[in-house]
This record gives sequence, structure tokens and C-alpha cells, in this order.
Amino acid sequence: MPGTPKSRIYLDSSSSAPLSTRAREAFLAALDEGWADPERLHAESRQSRALVDGAREAIAESLGAGAGSVHFTLSAFTAFDTTLSRLARARRGRQVIARTAVDRVAVIMAAERVGEVTVAAVDSRGHIKEHEWQVAVQDARTSIAVLQHASRETGAVQDVASLAEIAGSAGTPVVVDATASAGHLAIPEGWDAVIAHPADWGGVAGPGVVVLSPHARWLAGPSEPRSWAPGGISVPGILASAVALQERVEQRDLVNPRLEKMKKALSSHCASLPGVQVVEVGSHALPHIMTVVIDGIDGEALQAELDRHGVSVGSGSACTTGDYGHSHVLEAMGMPTQGNIRLGLHPGLPDDTPQIFGAALEAALTKLRSS
Amino acid sequence: MPGTPKSRIYLDSSSSAPLSTRAREAFLAALDEGWADPERLHAESRQSRALVDGAREAIAESLGAGAGSVHFTLSAFTAFDTTLSRLARARRGRQVIARTAVDRVAVIMAAERVGEVTVAAVDSRGHIKEHEWQVAVQDARTSIAVLQHASRETGAVQDVASLAEIAGSAGTPVVVDATASAGHLAIPEGWDAVIAHPADWGGVAGPGVVVLSPHARWLAGPSEPRSWAPGGISVPGILASAVALQERVEQRDLVNPRLEKMKKALSSHCASLPGVQVVEVGSHALPHIMTVVIDGIDGEALQAELDRHGVSVGSGSACTTGDYGHSHVLEAMGMPTQGNIRLGLHPGLPDDTPQIFGAALEAALTKLRSS
Repeated sequence: MPGTPKSRIYLDSSSSAPLSTRAREAFLAALDEGWADPERLHAESRQSRALVDGAREAIAESLGAGAGSVHFTLSAFTAFDTTLSRLARARRGRQVIARTAVDRVAVIMAAERVGEVTVAAVDSRGHIKEHEWQVAVQDARTSIAVLQHASRETGAVQDVASLAEIAGSAGTPVVVDATASAGHLAIPEGWDAVIAHPADWGGVAGPGVVVLSPHARWLAGPSEPRSWAPGGISVPGILASAVALQERVEQRDLVNPRLEKMKKALSSHCASLPGVQVVEVGSHALPHIMTVVIDGIDGEALQAELDRHGVSVGSGSACTTGDYGHSHVLEAMGMPTQGNIRLGLHPGLPDDTPQIFGAALEAALTKLRSS
Repeated sequence: MPGTPKSRIYLDSSSSAPLSTRAREAFLAALDEGWADPERLHAESRQSRALVDGAREAIAESLGAGAGSVHFTLSAFTAFDTTLSRLARARRGRQVIARTAVDRVAVIMAAERVGEVTVAAVDSRGHIKEHEWQVAVQDARTSIAVLQHASRETGAVQDVASLAEIAGSAGTPVVVDATASAGHLAIPEGWDAVIAHPADWGGVAGPGVVVLSPHARWLAGPSEPRSWAPGGISVPGILASAVALQERVEQRDLVNPRLEKMKKALSSHCASLPGVQVVEVGSHALPHIMTVVIDGIDGEALQAELDRHGVSVGSGSACTTGDYGHSHVLEAMGMPTQGNIRLGLHPGLPDDTPQIFGAALEAALTKLRSS
């Protein structure tokens, strides 16, 4: 992992990670070949456009969305904003966005901006309550429904296939939030739109991805360009992200079992420490994400102490916008919302990561509890 | 110029150009050092944040805006959207955005989204009519005024210092659109906000830059994160853009006279051809931008023909959103709005560019007029 001293353990992988060798090579090649604006008419522009089209195809194929159209957005945040408003606008007369209690802040904000909101609750393991979902998507006032595939905070995976089918039967278009799952897990069918985040699968920071099914209908707003990325995005970044996704999907059958094993060992180390609890989400879970709650400890203080021990972890709410202080996801599950840290594993971690983390956590807790 | 065969002449420089060697080196270093999300708490994040802070300082210094605060946005398009709405929101009770007839499409759309709009006209050389500007900024209903520094289409430079003073005397905050001038020309004082576009000065495609004066007041909207780039942007891109700006500013006194000379020679070649007219904007002009209008010729057909002759030029309206077909800027100046092409020069062009372009234009026109 370039840039990180070997002695440090980076466990905040999910919104950013160093580029792999292959993705970096694609990036450098596209710096030379894809610097021109892909929307112009001349040869340099056509060359950029061909690279973008190739990346689009590769991403659609890797996500198992062959017939869907791939749009790039300026960020994952704007992907939600633009997708929710455009799909809702095509469902004129319906004012309500249906979402669930475990949605990320970008979804919460986008839904609030678009219209009224109904929120389906989750159980103590973070799984959407099917009956509440059904009521929300069957409501005649509901324009679209947002369905999280997996939580970037707890790792909980929803039963997208059956929940999307319920919405589909009600005629309500479904936007699947795959920003924590794309690349890591196959995305079930039944969606009208899928939103994914290249930085999460090892692509570059910045752009978001929206895949629309062939039957998805959308309308741009007044005084809004039709482009999904007004102002344009970096072609090299798109290409590197497509290559990183191919790589992640190709290696999934090898990488996921290894990460799951590591996660299990991390859980054991945590469970052996007093006052430390791993957030339980059942067997359908992301292989690389988990949240740990520690009794009577401030999450930020623990992060800082772990950092001094050479271990980087994420903050509880998995949110960098800074507008939400505590974890609404843990709150919805009835869990404590203080003293939580989030671990995000990646393929580059050494085998003894659980031991190193366990020792650092023990030392950090001893320090914090004695002060 | 990497990626472009030596035999081609690239004259569409303004929204994208290859990275310089120095900017590319900064980019690669930051791929290794700045991959982490700068908004987290751990060491990797602090390292990214330090790079962003350094880029911020370098950009403020290069733009001569030392005391201003530099914000990065997801694109130049969103820079206008976010800045206009946030500054206008802080001027409660005032509903009107004052702008001028030569604004770029991003400004037109952003202003329409924020509120009512008044538009000050320009004269036949594209210069804002001072009296119309004065009336617009003195109107008690006017919340903010947008003032273009230079046109990316015609190269016309406005008298920002005196127009900003008029607005300032009226108490109306001024947003200066420096997306075509930052790096190329020094930005006059008197602004409350400056918007700049790294891709235009040789930085990376993607991000926009907003500089706020210490006395600028702004408010984020409801359900809107306080961040100016919700979802985050690429740290390497920011760093490369800062280095490209430093380089452009350092070399300005050498580069600008050379480009001005080249532009003059290009004008002479154009003027010697029948039916070809260079859009006149007077002596205050960008050194590297000009628009040429050709009688009885379709602009897109000419672009395509020049492309076949190995010369890449821009389209008239300098707009990639595809929502505006003809040039509203030329229309406002009372010029023909068909058959126009735009030339954008950059420091990497060979000395015989005017000769090569002149020959290609002559050949292209012969071909098009005979068909």
C-alpha cells in the first residue's frame, strides 16, 4: 500500500483506499490519452469519449447490468440528489419518497430536498421491516423508493430481491443504494436505478455512478442541464475506477472469504475484551465492514488513541459531511450511539491484522479508562 | 504535448489541456500521499488534509487573494450554483440576481435556479454597458451581482475594478466569474467571491474553485451539507491544479506576449480570407482566446473539416452542456451566431501555428464552399 508505512494498519477502507497497480496504470495511460473534454467534436475529444464509453461498458458488465445505461455523476452525494429528483419528477403527482431508517446521510438529505419522506424501520439487526416497507411502497402518494443494498456502517445486507419485488408489484420504481456493496457483492435484480461509489471499490475519490434500467423514466428539472455531471469529470478517474471494479469482481471469490475470516478473528478479539461489543447483523453481511461499540468510551477519543498506536479506523456514522454527529443507523437498531468505531477491511491487509488490532484496542482502552 | 501527434494543432485549449510536467509530477506524488479522505481523523487523512491546505494557500496566493478563503467545488458548474444560492440566501428579502448578457451558460442556469434575473446588456465589442449595470446593482431587490472578468468565447475583458466599485457602493455583493481569466490575467479587487476553473489554467478536469473575501456572508440551504463539495473531491487533482496555477502565473510575463503575438498573426491570416471575420473586442482581451465568424458556413461542418486537416478548434458557444445551440454571447454583441469557431491558444503551440492554421482554414473553406 503506497504512502502508508508498513507498520500502520489501515482499517478505514470504504470511502478511500490507494489505487491498485492495475488501476494506477490505467489512470496514467488515460492522463496521456484522455485529457481532452469528451464532449467536443475534434479528434482529441473523440479519443477521450472512446475511453469513457469503454469504462461505461466495463462498469455495466462488472455490475451485471449489461442492458442498463451507465451515467457518471460529480460525486456519490450528487448521484443521490440527481437520481432521486429526476426519477421522482417523472412520477408526476406523487410527492413522497419512501426510504428506510438505515440510509446514509446523502440519501436522507436528497430525499428531504425532493419531497415528503416516509421511513421504514429496521429490526435490531438492521434489517428492513418488510411490512413497513410494503406499506410505504404501496402508498399511492409514493413516487419512488430507495433501498439500501448493504450498510457501509454495520455491513448488514438487505434482502433486495424480495423487497424490490414488493415495490415492483406496487408499481413503485426502486433506487438501490449499492454505494457500499458494488464490487464486493453481486447486486440482485429488480432495480430501476443503482447508485454506486467507485472510491468504495478501490476506484478514485470523486465521481459517483448511476445505472438506469432500460425502463427507468426520468426528467431533468427546469434550468438544469441534461448532463448527469454538469461541468464534467476526469476521464482518467473514470477509467481507473472501471479497472479497479473489474479487478475487485475478478478477485471476489478469493478476497471475500479471506476478509470474512479476518473479520471473524477481529470479532473474536473484540469480544474477548470487557465492554466491547460487535454490532450483530446476521449472516447476510458485507465481508469487509463491521462496527464495534465500546461501553463508556468516546468514539473520537478512541479513534485518536488507536491512531497513535498506528491503527486507522473509521468514525461511527461513516459520514464525512459533518452534519450528523451520532449514528442514526445504530440508533434505529436500538444500539448505543456513543463509543462506536467502524472497521473497513481491504485485500492489502496482512494476515496478522486481527492480532495487531486486538493488541492496539486493548492498549488504547487501558489508556482511556485509566485517564 | 503528450497524447497528441506532433502534426496536429490543438486550438481548443480553455476547458481542457494536457497536464504540464510539473503538474503531472505533483499529481503522481499525491496519488501516493493523498489517497485518503481528508475529512477523517487518522494519520492518513491528516496527510491528505495537509496537502489540500497547501493547495488552498498556493491557489489563494497565486490568485492574489491572500486573505480570502478557498473552497473547492465538484465542478465549475456547481461552483456557480452553490455560490450564487449561498450568497443570495444571506441577503434575505432580496430576490433578484443581476447578471450580464455575456455570462456563460452555467451562470445563466444558476441564476435562474436561484431567483429572478435582470440582465445588463453589452455593446458591440462585448463590453458591459455601465449604465445598465449600475441600474441593475442599485435596484433594492437585487441580492447579488455576477460580473464576468473575461469571456471564454470572445476573449473580451471587462473593467471589473470600476464595475465592482459601482456594485460595492450600492452595497450589492459581487461574484466575479474568473473561469476564463484566472491564471491568465491578474484579477482586479472589489469582489466578494471569485469563481475559477482549474481545467482552464492547465489544472485537471473536474473541480471548481470559489474564493470568498473575509467579509462575504453566506448560508447553506436546508437539507444541504455545509461542504462546498458534497461527496468530496480528488486530492491529487487539487494539488496538480495548484501547481499548474503557480506555473501559469510565474510564466505569465513570458507566455502572454508570445500568445498575443500568435493571436495577432492568426487574426491577420483570417482577415486575408474572404468572408472571414475576427470578433473584435478591443484592446482589453485575453491573450489566448478569439472567435472567428465565417460567412455562409456551418460552424460544426467547419470544425469537422478542420479536424480532418489536423486542427482542433472549439465550437462557438464554448458550451459543453449541449442545451444551448447557438452563441448567445455573439447574439448580444449583434454578431452573426452561425459559422463561428473559437480558438484557444496554449503555451505548448509551435511558432508556425498561425501559418498551419491559416492553410488549414483556407483548404477547409475551399472544400466546404465547393460542396
